[in-house]
Amino acid sequence: MWIGVKILVMGADGFCGWATALYLSKQGHEVGALDGLLRRQWDKDLGISSLTPLPPFEARVAAWERKSGKKMPTFVGDLTNYEFVSDVFASFRPDAIVHFAEQRSAPYSMIDREHAVFTQVNNVVGTLNVLYAMKEHVPDAHLVKLGTMGEYGTPNIDIEEGWIRIEHNGRSDVLPYPKQPGSFYHLSKVHDSHNIMFTCRAWGIRATDLNQGVVYGVETAETAHDPELTNRFDYDEIYGTVLNRFCLEAAIGHPLTVYGDGGQTRGMLNIEDTVRCIELACENPAQPGEFRVFNQFTESFSVADLAERVVAAARDMGIDARIERLPNPRVEKEQHYYNAKHSALEDLGLKPHLLTQDVIKRIIEIAAQYKDRADLGVIRPTVSWRATASRRTAPVK
Amino acid sequence: MWIGVKILVMGADGFCGWATALYLSKQGHEVGALDGLLRRQWDKDLGISSLTPLPPFEARVAAWERKSGKKMPTFVGDLTNYEFVSDVFASFRPDAIVHFAEQRSAPYSMIDREHAVFTQVNNVVGTLNVLYAMKEHVPDAHLVKLGTMGEYGTPNIDIEEGWIRIEHNGRSDVLPYPKQPGSFYHLSKVHDSHNIMFTCRAWGIRATDLNQGVVYGVETAETAHDPELTNRFDYDEIYGTVLNRFCLEAAIGHPLTVYGDGGQTRGMLNIEDTVRCIELACENPAQPGEFRVFNQFTESFSVADLAERVVAAARDMGIDARIERLPNPRVEKEQHYYNAKHSALEDLGLKPHLLTQDVIKRIIEIAAQYKDRADLGVIRPTVSWRATASRRTAPVK
Repeated sequence: MWIGVKILVMGADGFCGWATALYLSKQGHEVGALDGLLRRQWDKDLGISSLTPLPPFEARVAAWERKSGKKMPTFVGDLTNYEFVSDVFASFRPDAIVHFAEQRSAPYSMIDREHAVFTQVNNVVGTLNVLYAMKEHVPDAHLVKLGTMGEYGTPNIDIEEGWIRIEHNGRSDVLPYPKQPGSFYHLSKVHDSHNIMFTCRAWGIRATDLNQGVVYGVETAETAHDPELTNRFDYDEIYGTVLNRFCLEAAIGHPLTVYGDGGQTRGMLNIEDTVRCIELACENPAQPGEFRVFNQFTESFSVADLAERVVAAARDMGIDARIERLPNPRVEKEQHYYNAKHSALEDLGLKPHLLTQDVIKRIIEIAAQYKDRADLGVIRPTVSWRATASRRTAPVK
Repeated sequence: MWIGVKILVMGADGFCGWATALYLSKQGHEVGALDGLLRRQWDKDLGISSLTPLPPFEARVAAWERKSGKKMPTFVGDLTNYEFVSDVFASFRPDAIVHFAEQRSAPYSMIDREHAVFTQVNNVVGTLNVLYAMKEHVPDAHLVKLGTMGEYGTPNIDIEEGWIRIEHNGRSDVLPYPKQPGSFYHLSKVHDSHNIMFTCRAWGIRATDLNQGVVYGVETAETAHDPELTNRFDYDEIYGTVLNRFCLEAAIGHPLTVYGDGGQTRGMLNIEDTVRCIELACENPAQPGEFRVFNQFTESFSVADLAERVVAAARDMGIDARIERLPNPRVEKEQHYYNAKHSALEDLGLKPHLLTQDVIKRIIEIAAQYKDRADLGVIRPTVSWRATASRRTAPVK
């Protein structure tokens, strides 16, 4: 096993980033934890918070260092500030850069013009700064960038992993897979992918773009059973993703909020697989100049199917959960073809944790444990894809 | 003929924008002329200027109004300022918005990190603001957006107009044509295209994306033979495009600067066709929700072929022009397949002005007329695609 890679995890205070930083540290990698703490500010602006209580960033890192005996240097700053990024890369000199540090909510990006512009500028400029800092300080390092399965949209053909061979008028080429993203957030990830692909070609950057599906679950071995190390649990309309939100709704007796028909089908994965996928990408770096794309999910489900699975699991636990179909606030197909490939990470050794009833029950159990902290007023969707300005919030910077 | 469309030309002080605003005005459309005058500032920052002397923006518009008897209201402001954009759209209420108002130089975007970030933020945020202002004030208006043939790169299959039918694993769909842009500028246009395509789907915006080739020539009927109405002539390494630069080089006795092999092949068109293409797009608007793409060029040439044509035309004029092959400062294929479709605009009625020796001679003649204003120090390329920071300039805002 390839031990001792120096990995900078950016966005290490977030849901995926925190679990990943701890896992990679436990596995023996030398991990630096970078975060701008912007998400904690956005939560305040939006009047929402994690269902699970979170210690401050430095405190939870210090707790990890104390309990694990590992070192994990922290870097607090904003990726849109190049001086900060450059200083971190020059001093830490990572072999791999794991980049989760973006505004990651589609509804957030659709609140109004300000949030759309902020999301695209924040994500695109942050990633451009990372690329320039790599070229300047660590040109041989490997960028492991989080994209999203939402970049592809729902085409009527199979979704490949980033590239597709096209036969056309008697000729043939392998080209970037066409993208049809469905929000200003998803668009920002498509912009990032194109920018990164260009720097691979022009500068010889090594990059892996991980088009991740919807992540569910809360715990990993490192974060479970220790309140100081616990992970986030988002359930609100802005940051709550579909399965975790349904589990919380079941736990507190709120109807499961299905948007539209529920035929929307998406790739999904357990947070326990996220951390392992990142490690596999870091341990098997892309070649110099290679723009490699992996679809990072393990199973596909329709929203209606997920809701029914949660209802069944809840009933097993004695909870009488029910489903409520809401008018879809998004613009998306509710019935569509969906067959997305995801073999690259399994070929590297990923052993998927599949979505069993036990997994769902455990998420409901955790939600129930913290149910007194749930705010019922932030669950139903208020952000409309069709409106220009759909929610009053504090202004973004 | 469909007369009296209210058209807002954005970037009306620029090379294509100026010629377009005057042509549409002469044709009887009601034209508003918007510009932020940023390009004039960038010229100062870079120590370059148009070969032809240009009156100030308001003065040249006033000259047009005096000579043509038409009205052309001006709006001076920056598209990244939403309050300005919103005010203009609310008061002028255009039927069509012609959007040239972007930082349009690939070398500019490759100068260093600051110029890359500035180009992408300026172009992407400006276009997002335009989309939001359309939705807020004129949701039925038609956006005519200038893209570039450079969005496609040089794939090994035929280039279609924006969309391509892909047959894959026994299924079929018409999807956005894959993009492989070759600079941070070209990338900004790809980002715009994706953002616009999304708003067509989500908001029902009508849009035509014009992927324009390299424009050559100087004069149109409206701008010729009148110093107060004359158009720009860019010849420097940053803003000078290939054919016009070769003609200036021939006129002043500078070797024709071919980058690399010269096998790079690109779609090209005369500025006289640019203005007509824009009119055709405005007079035949896209449907609500339609994202329509036209490839706006008339002929393809390799760089080496263009250089030889200019040498031949110059020799006919008694000028002993010669070609110098320089190391290519860009990262691009110098030998490649190139067959790009461009029938949509011809189907709407475009009658191309082709590249004859007479056309080349007229450009050389204009260049010779202003040769005393040429600065030999700004012609050779100093901006390298491979370097992180390749040219000292005044900082961007």
